[in-house]
Amino acid sequence: MDPRIREHADIIVEHSTDLQAGENVVIDAHPVAEDLVVALHERIADVGANPLVVSERTGTRFRRAYLRNHEGDFDFPDHQMALYEAMDVYIAIRASDNVSQTSDIDPETTREYDQVTQPILEERLGKTWCLTQFPAAANAQLAEMSTEEYESFVWDATIRDWDEQREFQSHMVDILDPASEVRIVSGEETDVTMSVEGMTTLNDYGEANLPGGEVFTAPVPDSVEGTVYFDKPVYQQGREITDVRVTFEGGRVVEHSAAKNEDVLTNILDTDEGARRLGELGIGMNRGIDRFTYNMLFDEKMGDTVHMAVGRAYDDCVGEGREKNESAVHVDMIVDMSEDSFIEVDGEVVQRDGTFRFEDGFSQ
Amino acid sequence: MDPRIREHADIIVEHSTDLQAGENVVIDAHPVAEDLVVALHERIADVGANPLVVSERTGTRFRRAYLRNHEGDFDFPDHQMALYEAMDVYIAIRASDNVSQTSDIDPETTREYDQVTQPILEERLGKTWCLTQFPAAANAQLAEMSTEEYESFVWDATIRDWDEQREFQSHMVDILDPASEVRIVSGEETDVTMSVEGMTTLNDYGEANLPGGEVFTAPVPDSVEGTVYFDKPVYQQGREITDVRVTFEGGRVVEHSAAKNEDVLTNILDTDEGARRLGELGIGMNRGIDRFTYNMLFDEKMGDTVHMAVGRAYDDCVGEGREKNESAVHVDMIVDMSEDSFIEVDGEVVQRDGTFRFEDGFSQ
Repeated sequence: MDPRIREHADIIVEHSTDLQAGENVVIDAHPVAEDLVVALHERIADVGANPLVVSERTGTRFRRAYLRNHEGDFDFPDHQMALYEAMDVYIAIRASDNVSQTSDIDPETTREYDQVTQPILEERLGKTWCLTQFPAAANAQLAEMSTEEYESFVWDATIRDWDEQREFQSHMVDILDPASEVRIVSGEETDVTMSVEGMTTLNDYGEANLPGGEVFTAPVPDSVEGTVYFDKPVYQQGREITDVRVTFEGGRVVEHSAAKNEDVLTNILDTDEGARRLGELGIGMNRGIDRFTYNMLFDEKMGDTVHMAVGRAYDDCVGEGREKNESAVHVDMIVDMSEDSFIEVDGEVVQRDGTFRFEDGFSQ
Repeated sequence: MDPRIREHADIIVEHSTDLQAGENVVIDAHPVAEDLVVALHERIADVGANPLVVSERTGTRFRRAYLRNHEGDFDFPDHQMALYEAMDVYIAIRASDNVSQTSDIDPETTREYDQVTQPILEERLGKTWCLTQFPAAANAQLAEMSTEEYESFVWDATIRDWDEQREFQSHMVDILDPASEVRIVSGEETDVTMSVEGMTTLNDYGEANLPGGEVFTAPVPDSVEGTVYFDKPVYQQGREITDVRVTFEGGRVVEHSAAKNEDVLTNILDTDEGARRLGELGIGMNRGIDRFTYNMLFDEKMGDTVHMAVGRAYDDCVGEGREKNESAVHVDMIVDMSEDSFIEVDGEVVQRDGTFRFEDGFSQ
């Protein structure tokens, strides 16, 4: 086994989830991630926790078979809920044998299934969880890299000094957490403002997301105004949505378009009322991730980007007594901030062309 | 996909488990059985039941990693119990990428783990369940067959007219169910008697076991007397135990030996008090299974064999008010009855040299 797989498992168990003896762990993984599942079991045994392996990630052939053959009107799976209620820690491993495995499922079916099973998602998100990536061949292919190069990309981004990264990102938390208004401007098209007043800005340094490397908060749902051009593609339901443009009025997406797979985007926005509002604003700060790989777990952490997600907000970002955006979906979309761009917080520029105010080379 | 895989799934869903809309199903499978898991999801969707895929079969690399790294003193996995309590139907698929995957686990560790998790096994056995086989390459190798030949072996034994098989076996149920004493004699060494008085004889026609093809009951625990030479090898914990000889007194194994891996046998018998007593007597009646393949799911159903299991008895075999043999283990061992052998029930020979009393060619 590649020794980096055991280092990866060490970080998941010791840093990301801080696993303790007697805790009940669910590992949710596609079969191609077997090596990491093995390494995790070694460490879980060391700690004295209790593992269970499930395979409920969306990109499996059997999930596809189930959704394609189902006539709709999904039943709620009580046994899954019972499992996740009794679970303490959830480790989800992204990996695929074919990233287009879900591409011939009717988006309407996926939407219905997501709606019915939303309480399960909520239950899992209420526990200690870690979402990470195993560098399977199909994921390398999506990133347009050889498997070996992709392995290095994933493990270089993952096996890091997370204390150092936390320290770097804390400067941005200190700016955003007490702020009221945020404005994001990029290129000719993107100019959007939103309130984050009363919301909590979190520092992601490789806990729930591994790799980590972002600072994120929840916009006040009704406050978002303006237009955004997401210049990086979005991969959803096995399909690539490109050149997404959305316009917000009163927090709601009132216009949207995409060059490719616009219908998939429309379906996402039509999932429920919350799917037309922003649930997250994130600032990518992981300079170890230096290329776009069609994988949101990495892409949203790239230095010199921001991302916004339509759909569900994270509980921990929503201040007490504040309205939380609820939805069955959470879809991140990315804006490149490396050129001709700035982030303004309460009227002050805090990042210009990818350089933060607290870094060398920043110019007001 | 081989069309026989979908036929196999049809039988599991329609015949073996009689799956109904809204039922909560757990499929427990090694990743190499993926095709059958896919076909099952198609049928589960048709029916409107709710699937969950877990990978908790013993022969995985990660179970091995867990057991080898654990220091003992296992914790009870509450989340697994919660899942199985909320489950209606359990489908376990045997398949392996290496049938020796568990061969370097300390048998003592396996014994401890089995003891701690016994309530989970009991919970699963209390639900509708089906144990079946997917013809993976490693299983073919164990059977000393090419993968393609083994596929035909498995599916010929599995995709059958189970109504016809049930009818054939019911003759033997009619003999054994009301009986008191059973005597099994084979060759020079095997001569054992036991009481089955008050116990229930069941007809296995492809429900809990797929393939089915046996008639089985539970001996009265203290009644077993005599010696048995099990001429077919036993495969346990990734190791082959050969030429097992056991002597019973007052129902208890008082002497045992094996030509190979006797220590594994000793460990099984030392699991608990019930592991030294018989929990099952079975008569193999599936003439579709015409060769020994080192796989108990098939071997015990072979025509012209009987099998006895040390350890746990099945609830449904134990008559009301009767003592049930309890144990963390259930290990079947087979006696060839095709030559120089007979089965006597209450003093009458009911099978001689593999031919039943209710078949042509039987000679008293």
